[in-house]
Amino acid sequence: MNVDELILVSVDDHVIEPPGVFEGRLPAEYAAAAPRFIRRANGTMAWVYEGVEIPNTALNAVAGRPMSEYGREPVCVEEIRPGCYDIHARVKDMDANGMLGALCFPSFVRFCGQLFLENGPRDQSAAMVRAYNDWHLDEWAGTYPGRFIPLAIPILWDPRLAADEVRRAARKGCHAVTFSSNPHALGLPSLYTDHWDPFWRACSEEGTVVCLHLGSSSTVPITSPDAPIEVIYSLSPIGLIEAASDLVWSSVFRKFPDLRVALSEGGVGWVPYFQERIDQIYAKTRHWSGMDLGGRLPSEIFREHVLLCFIEDSVGLENRRHLNIDNLTWECDYPHSDSTWPRSPEAVWPSLSGLTREEIDKITHANAMRHFRYDPFAHIPREQATVAALRRRAAGWDVGIRPTAHLRPAGV
Amino acid sequence: MNVDELILVSVDDHVIEPPGVFEGRLPAEYAAAAPRFIRRANGTMAWVYEGVEIPNTALNAVAGRPMSEYGREPVCVEEIRPGCYDIHARVKDMDANGMLGALCFPSFVRFCGQLFLENGPRDQSAAMVRAYNDWHLDEWAGTYPGRFIPLAIPILWDPRLAADEVRRAARKGCHAVTFSSNPHALGLPSLYTDHWDPFWRACSEEGTVVCLHLGSSSTVPITSPDAPIEVIYSLSPIGLIEAASDLVWSSVFRKFPDLRVALSEGGVGWVPYFQERIDQIYAKTRHWSGMDLGGRLPSEIFREHVLLCFIEDSVGLENRRHLNIDNLTWECDYPHSDSTWPRSPEAVWPSLSGLTREEIDKITHANAMRHFRYDPFAHIPREQATVAALRRRAAGWDVGIRPTAHLRPAGV
Repeated sequence: MNVDELILVSVDDHVIEPPGVFEGRLPAEYAAAAPRFIRRANGTMAWVYEGVEIPNTALNAVAGRPMSEYGREPVCVEEIRPGCYDIHARVKDMDANGMLGALCFPSFVRFCGQLFLENGPRDQSAAMVRAYNDWHLDEWAGTYPGRFIPLAIPILWDPRLAADEVRRAARKGCHAVTFSSNPHALGLPSLYTDHWDPFWRACSEEGTVVCLHLGSSSTVPITSPDAPIEVIYSLSPIGLIEAASDLVWSSVFRKFPDLRVALSEGGVGWVPYFQERIDQIYAKTRHWSGMDLGGRLPSEIFREHVLLCFIEDSVGLENRRHLNIDNLTWECDYPHSDSTWPRSPEAVWPSLSGLTREEIDKITHANAMRHFRYDPFAHIPREQATVAALRRRAAGWDVGIRPTAHLRPAGV
Repeated sequence: MNVDELILVSVDDHVIEPPGVFEGRLPAEYAAAAPRFIRRANGTMAWVYEGVEIPNTALNAVAGRPMSEYGREPVCVEEIRPGCYDIHARVKDMDANGMLGALCFPSFVRFCGQLFLENGPRDQSAAMVRAYNDWHLDEWAGTYPGRFIPLAIPILWDPRLAADEVRRAARKGCHAVTFSSNPHALGLPSLYTDHWDPFWRACSEEGTVVCLHLGSSSTVPITSPDAPIEVIYSLSPIGLIEAASDLVWSSVFRKFPDLRVALSEGGVGWVPYFQERIDQIYAKTRHWSGMDLGGRLPSEIFREHVLLCFIEDSVGLENRRHLNIDNLTWECDYPHSDSTWPRSPEAVWPSLSGLTREEIDKITHANAMRHFRYDPFAHIPREQATVAALRRRAAGWDVGIRPTAHLRPAGV
């Protein structure tokens, strides 16, 4: 097998929402309250909802720029690739990267729709969530059948409404929903309550994967205010070990044995250590703490229920015999700075060295297809879905790295 | 090689301080202010300093009890093994565990002496630190030559006084000092300042290893107030990844190239992932963030300067080719609940399967001896230092597991 034969489905990319998200998708009473995309007098862009300006609308959208420009957040549309927000350009960027499928997390509404938890009357914000999801499912993920794993955002403040929205999205073919890696950190009940049961039940029954993306706890891992950005980058993916712990030690998976949760952008290399550690802990605490996992080891529960997601992770793949290879998935992370675009096939290939074709197929696409009930081959024949075939379709599409800092408005 | 031939030196154990620590070791003006060990009317024990009662003086000292009793903190001396506080009993407990050497962290003064940072006039508390260290070096570690790696606590509020104390301890043969895994969390300057340079310089020049024990940031990793104790246990060792990040991304090792820092009870299995991640980060951020590691990779810096410490860690040892095997050390953690006492040789043996004798010797004792300038064989012939030889000396010493909960004062 060679790199050209890979079929790549990413379970973690990002959309920078274009202005028209809410247009024509809201009940009349809420239309005027919709978040608005604005260009300020100085040329910078923002979204506005309930009087709150969200300035960083293209968080870390640096794809296509030289690394020397990765440090400054884009402030205007001219700084970012059209593939960030334009679905046609996005598919071209995917083709050029030899990438068949993508699951796109939201941007201005934040990783699990915190914007609507924190702002607006509840009924109105629920309407916004539904309109957002309709846009994502119908327009973003729907325009090119077979190219996207659709992803819904949740109604965070009401588990029954959240469940309804999961079921509504499932009826539209969506089997992924974002959620917070730590609802307690958002001021909501933790995983140790039964508060979320209606939501878990809906996800379990609909076969909807709950995706916990780094950053969805609304906290930033930092050791001191004067620590450099590298510290945040060092601690962010592995920070999902907190969510992993909550998942294993709470009763969520015991109550909902069909539920699957993804640690989006969490990496893999630390997981074998984590599994060994939690089993060591349970061997002792089970005698006194009251923890009862029903005859199973915590690592078994973790391996069965938790989907692992990696961008480049040689250590993790070397240690795959400790992992459930049926739950290992790959990420591109376009257009963020951790992304390997437009050389993802070449970037992931070394991590796959020594694996069998069956293992490679599982990790690169088959696991994602099964877990997210995503069937690209219903639309695109398999032989047209490979790295080589997709890149042929993108012949002439410009993926050259070029600076855009000079396009930033003066004085910003 | 078999388990009886191992020579085991632990770089992480704990002493529960006996009442006489400060007696005869303080300048006359401070003698009356010394922390006092008390037995309350209800039979429970505490230390008192500056009017502050420190109740949990035998934190997690559960060695020898059945696991069903691990959950309750000991409150009286009857609940804990004499080996926790009596040096003669400790050495017997070490013999019975086949263990040659131990490095013992403090208990009631907290992992890096936070008690004296937070209480008392500065001059007085500095005198307390010095008296504590004299007790530890002369009495605890000094009574049985060759059996202990001495460990000093620092004067946390003044880097010059801390440096003086490091040098004074070194003159007494001590080449280990505890420090905080995050001084910022203690209200002190971070590693990104030059505040600590006198302290680092002293440690570097004296060949003193700086030991960062989990818990020395005075914070507890927890996801929500209703999370079970297992979550804290899951996140505690790997929480030292925060200190690892600060060490790598700060200029400490660039300024003091001879300095060595130990991640005490940090485990090993997550480190290969961490090393891969920090190199990925630097490959990108070096182009824009201003981070300049002087032509070296962050993983190289980490491998050279950071000592890794594990209790049981099969995954870590399986991945040893990613590690600097000259910086790998073993821990017993007596008398805490993670300890493998009194079956440490048998507990660590599976992790050592497949290693060469040279590798095993490094990990079990040679690395600790070199880094801490500890030479047990000057006092104890090598052939008398093995698991089998030490256990022979302890023939008849009772290491039976037995409950002590019934010895707890009624109503406590």
